[in-house]
Amino acid sequence: MDRLPGFRDFYPEPLPHTDVWSADARNYIFNAWRGAARRYGFREYDGPPLEPLELFTTKSGDEIVGQLYNFIDKGERGISLRPEMTPTLARMVAAHERAYKKPIKWFAIPQLFRYERQQKGRLREHFQFNADIIGENDPAADAEIIALLIDSLRALKLTEDDFVIRLSSRQAWQQFYQRGTQNAERGDDPARAYEFYQIIDKLEREDPAVSRTKLDKLGFNYDDVTGFIAASQPTPELQRVLDNLAARGLGGFVKIDYNVIRGLAYYTGVVFEAFDKKGEFRAIAGGGRYDNLVKLMSGGKVDLPAIGFGMGDVVLLELLKARGLLPKFDAGVDVFCLIEDETLRAESLKLITDLRGAGKVVEYSFTPSKADKQFKRAMELNAANTARIERTADGALQVKVKSLRTREERVVGFADVAGAV
Amino acid sequence: MDRLPGFRDFYPEPLPHTDVWSADARNYIFNAWRGAARRYGFREYDGPPLEPLELFTTKSGDEIVGQLYNFIDKGERGISLRPEMTPTLARMVAAHERAYKKPIKWFAIPQLFRYERQQKGRLREHFQFNADIIGENDPAADAEIIALLIDSLRALKLTEDDFVIRLSSRQAWQQFYQRGTQNAERGDDPARAYEFYQIIDKLEREDPAVSRTKLDKLGFNYDDVTGFIAASQPTPELQRVLDNLAARGLGGFVKIDYNVIRGLAYYTGVVFEAFDKKGEFRAIAGGGRYDNLVKLMSGGKVDLPAIGFGMGDVVLLELLKARGLLPKFDAGVDVFCLIEDETLRAESLKLITDLRGAGKVVEYSFTPSKADKQFKRAMELNAANTARIERTADGALQVKVKSLRTREERVVGFADVAGAV
Repeated sequence: MDRLPGFRDFYPEPLPHTDVWSADARNYIFNAWRGAARRYGFREYDGPPLEPLELFTTKSGDEIVGQLYNFIDKGERGISLRPEMTPTLARMVAAHERAYKKPIKWFAIPQLFRYERQQKGRLREHFQFNADIIGENDPAADAEIIALLIDSLRALKLTEDDFVIRLSSRQAWQQFYQRGTQNAERGDDPARAYEFYQIIDKLEREDPAVSRTKLDKLGFNYDDVTGFIAASQPTPELQRVLDNLAARGLGGFVKIDYNVIRGLAYYTGVVFEAFDKKGEFRAIAGGGRYDNLVKLMSGGKVDLPAIGFGMGDVVLLELLKARGLLPKFDAGVDVFCLIEDETLRAESLKLITDLRGAGKVVEYSFTPSKADKQFKRAMELNAANTARIERTADGALQVKVKSLRTREERVVGFADVAGAV
Repeated sequence: MDRLPGFRDFYPEPLPHTDVWSADARNYIFNAWRGAARRYGFREYDGPPLEPLELFTTKSGDEIVGQLYNFIDKGERGISLRPEMTPTLARMVAAHERAYKKPIKWFAIPQLFRYERQQKGRLREHFQFNADIIGENDPAADAEIIALLIDSLRALKLTEDDFVIRLSSRQAWQQFYQRGTQNAERGDDPARAYEFYQIIDKLEREDPAVSRTKLDKLGFNYDDVTGFIAASQPTPELQRVLDNLAARGLGGFVKIDYNVIRGLAYYTGVVFEAFDKKGEFRAIAGGGRYDNLVKLMSGGKVDLPAIGFGMGDVVLLELLKARGLLPKFDAGVDVFCLIEDETLRAESLKLITDLRGAGKVVEYSFTPSKADKQFKRAMELNAANTARIERTADGALQVKVKSLRTREERVVGFADVAGAV
């Protein structure tokens, strides 16, 4: 019996097969995310993996349904596995925002789901680090969220040589759009604006001739557009973000790049994406300011500005692998307890329990086994030490601790073993 | 817009409302589980929250479907949110068991789902710590898994006064059943055995007269049954488990109690449940040996003995609350950086970034704010220290660090702040 297509099994390393994923690497990434978020004072939250379908259609329109993992439940409700976290966050904040001082700084690491037509190897789920600041419209919040993004990648040993944050502004593009819209045909048509943003979003990947024709149809000149991008003049707001990040010593991680616009319609200000510098992978992370969404999602009841980002585990893991930045994972055994004399098994079990109680990772053989087999197993597990109880000539018991790094062995008092390993 | 009935929102503490759950308490419990499992040398795994429906019906029969959160997906597949982890574990182990030395010691903390008729406050999801040992039939493995169960509860500061593991044996009951089955009517009927186990499973909660009548119908005497339970004679296997746990110093946490039988049909040997000693709550955890399941789930391809347990987050949290064992949760702020002189904001941002880089949790005000307001915020956040940069009379910069515990303030070199907080 097989798992569903597009879903992953996570195994302990070393991995048994190329077809499965590493539970250890996943935890390593989660810990880096969680650690960075906490150092920045972000608090963790979570919501249900299932939500009412309308939570997602309210935000993204009915078009989204084609990509959702949605269904009708036994109570005849239209429900969906969450494709993103922001609607849940907006719902949760709107429900209880009065209980929290602003700005609210929250993060989550949800598993997200999409039902796309199945392509070979295409995943239908991933995990995504989400961090958001709600209730602060000063660019200082934009800088803080981008600094967190940078530091969550630095926590995984990625450097300025590995990635860059491309920074852009919806407002700059709105102003550009407005200038080209005075007296234009369909000037008031929101669909025209949407089309324009779609063209900009695809500009880097699209054949220039195609983009030129499309822009022409909307009354925009291709060279004006590319000239605007090439100039990359920061808005006053972007300049404040840049200055703030420079003060932190993080200026080298960001650059203005108006090619970035973010496809999603709801962004209202600064937008950004993180890319590997060699351009080998899709975006590592993306985010921006969305000052109208909480109001929309709360039916107008709560109006709070917000900025956040999402970073998935899949591209990030590819990048870490490609750069050789994943550590070697094992069980982290501190002590392998050798039971060479079966009459000392009870005493050994006591020692094992005490060592574990002192926080040590301890392994041993459940059943009688030859000394050399036990030692071999300790080596396979990459244990840092072995410990074994011995009976001395006068019948007293003593513990011998051997470092498998230095191969030194010494006698240690029962009470001192935990401190010695 | 509300969340679905039976699902939980997890908020940072202090909680805004009685209707929501604590993300901090959840993490506290997960960390205790994960830490104990690792000290015992267990490795983490995970599988998809969605599986093919037949994965669960293969194990539990078609009757299970009524309790599943199942549906037909867009690819016309019958699928289900996982109601338990063991079928996924069996599937994963069967697929790649050759790559792992036996015994395999694995754990997971999946979210599990059931669709039961909605009752006020009844949850449709919970998180469950699952730990299993696969490939070892010696009772030493039974003792190890029960020791892990005990130590995961001790990691949450629960003691011998708080909980007990009630230990029983399917084999002891099978022998009892066999003795009462020689020459009995329907002696070969598996349904008769199933009915018998159901009666035993309910014995403690059921009116004795009802149980007596039911047992009579199957040809068993009620007093024989209760006498067998009262005698609680450990099988040789159970005796070995008891001796092993006693050697570890954990004997006080277990007692033989043949009232425990575990409703699920697939257990084959030792079974156990953890209960609070005051008897206020449902079972905290339950498990047992299931030596035939991997073979069943792999269509006969892989035959490995196994033992494991599951412990949910809901009863456990109730118990920890009732015993006053939950710590007070906050953001754990090490330093609140006071920016009293706006001309020093850039320098302050650098200090904040360096401190975070050194692993400290740092908070500050994004925007200019009065000194007393910033200090008040530091107090509200329960920060351990404040730090502020000052310009001395000769124009040099210095950092003043104040402990909010002792109220002592001292001047610290820029490079030494991280070590001082």
